[in-house]
Amino acid sequence: MAARSSYRLPKIPEMTIRRLSVYTRCLLQLEEDNVKTVSSQELAERFNLNSAQVRKDLAYFGEFGVRGIGYYVIGLKTELQRILGLDRAWPVVLVGFGNLGSALFHYKGFGTQGFRIAAIVDDDPAKVAREVDSVPIIPSRDMAREIKARSVQIAIVAVPAESAQPVTDQLVAAGIKAILNFAPARIKVPRDVRLKNVDLSIELETLSFYLAKGTR
Amino acid sequence: MAARSSYRLPKIPEMTIRRLSVYTRCLLQLEEDNVKTVSSQELAERFNLNSAQVRKDLAYFGEFGVRGIGYYVIGLKTELQRILGLDRAWPVVLVGFGNLGSALFHYKGFGTQGFRIAAIVDDDPAKVAREVDSVPIIPSRDMAREIKARSVQIAIVAVPAESAQPVTDQLVAAGIKAILNFAPARIKVPRDVRLKNVDLSIELETLSFYLAKGTR
Repeated sequence: MAARSSYRLPKIPEMTIRRLSVYTRCLLQLEEDNVKTVSSQELAERFNLNSAQVRKDLAYFGEFGVRGIGYYVIGLKTELQRILGLDRAWPVVLVGFGNLGSALFHYKGFGTQGFRIAAIVDDDPAKVAREVDSVPIIPSRDMAREIKARSVQIAIVAVPAESAQPVTDQLVAAGIKAILNFAPARIKVPRDVRLKNVDLSIELETLSFYLAKGTR
Repeated sequence: MAARSSYRLPKIPEMTIRRLSVYTRCLLQLEEDNVKTVSSQELAERFNLNSAQVRKDLAYFGEFGVRGIGYYVIGLKTELQRILGLDRAWPVVLVGFGNLGSALFHYKGFGTQGFRIAAIVDDDPAKVAREVDSVPIIPSRDMAREIKARSVQIAIVAVPAESAQPVTDQLVAAGIKAILNFAPARIKVPRDVRLKNVDLSIELETLSFYLAKGTR
């Protein structure tokens, strides 16, 4: 828990953070395969990465490689998990339990990385007061109380576009510090709240851009 | 349809392409609100963007602004849609119709941007041969035929991790040129196929990174 001001966090590109997540997954796979050490070249070849990029990304956080050996798989994995905040459990509140909310709830990846959906919020009378895999579905009027009681800092927003901003305002007022927004709406949050918009159609559009360029 | 080799496409950062998608959404909103022209500053203020970034991104593709006026909303929107390949309809095949596949099928954003799911592939006997909103669910053995018959170039992969690579190999063999992969697995494709991995837990991890940094 020593202060590590040498991180100089504000300068780290978000793409580096995203790649740390990818590296962590690769290292988990290597650990499962009983691989003890790995060089950046081996890592790159096996997982289709760029070895110079791997070294550059890791260099933001310290010296992890050992000359002639490479990286210790478990050691580096543990260190990256700590950097990503995955060395603890994060309770998450999921707002909206329609098709997408339901898919996100069942999405395997969240749980394995330490994110645990602690409560689902939905005002649909057919859903509210039920439980899904022991997680309660609560109405939005109880949301703030639940967030405070469980010290939840992260929310996933999966409501229709028109509800996204009001829901976000409620979440922020209740003390949420980070929001992953799947609603197809641009929402605003105060400066001290971290917002990440996921627009699934943008992903498709980067593909159509490249497909279309051949025909323009 | 004139050749625009001045695009020099390989140099355009992917983040620029993603932002073009965002700008297009903003312009659609302005068009709906009957706004005829907009400056990069107004655009930035209203939609929480960076005006210098807007100008830089657009500059990759030409001169769109008019001195003293700004951008013509409809003109710029149309141009961006053309650049993103959204001036045509893209048939898409969706492979996997579990929770996530189902959510993606119903995701409103795809349809409005010209992506149309032409077929759903799933081998579950309880699902196959049914139709969802007039879209047929077909078994994977019929996938290649369907892709060729409908000239589908884009596939969305929403199958479990262990099926992701075999499904991808089949898609590529059938002529698919772009894949949006939601399966939590790193898959490989030939050089001429565009692959975009969407790992929803990575989005959460960029948030936990920032939340955790205060406590490290």
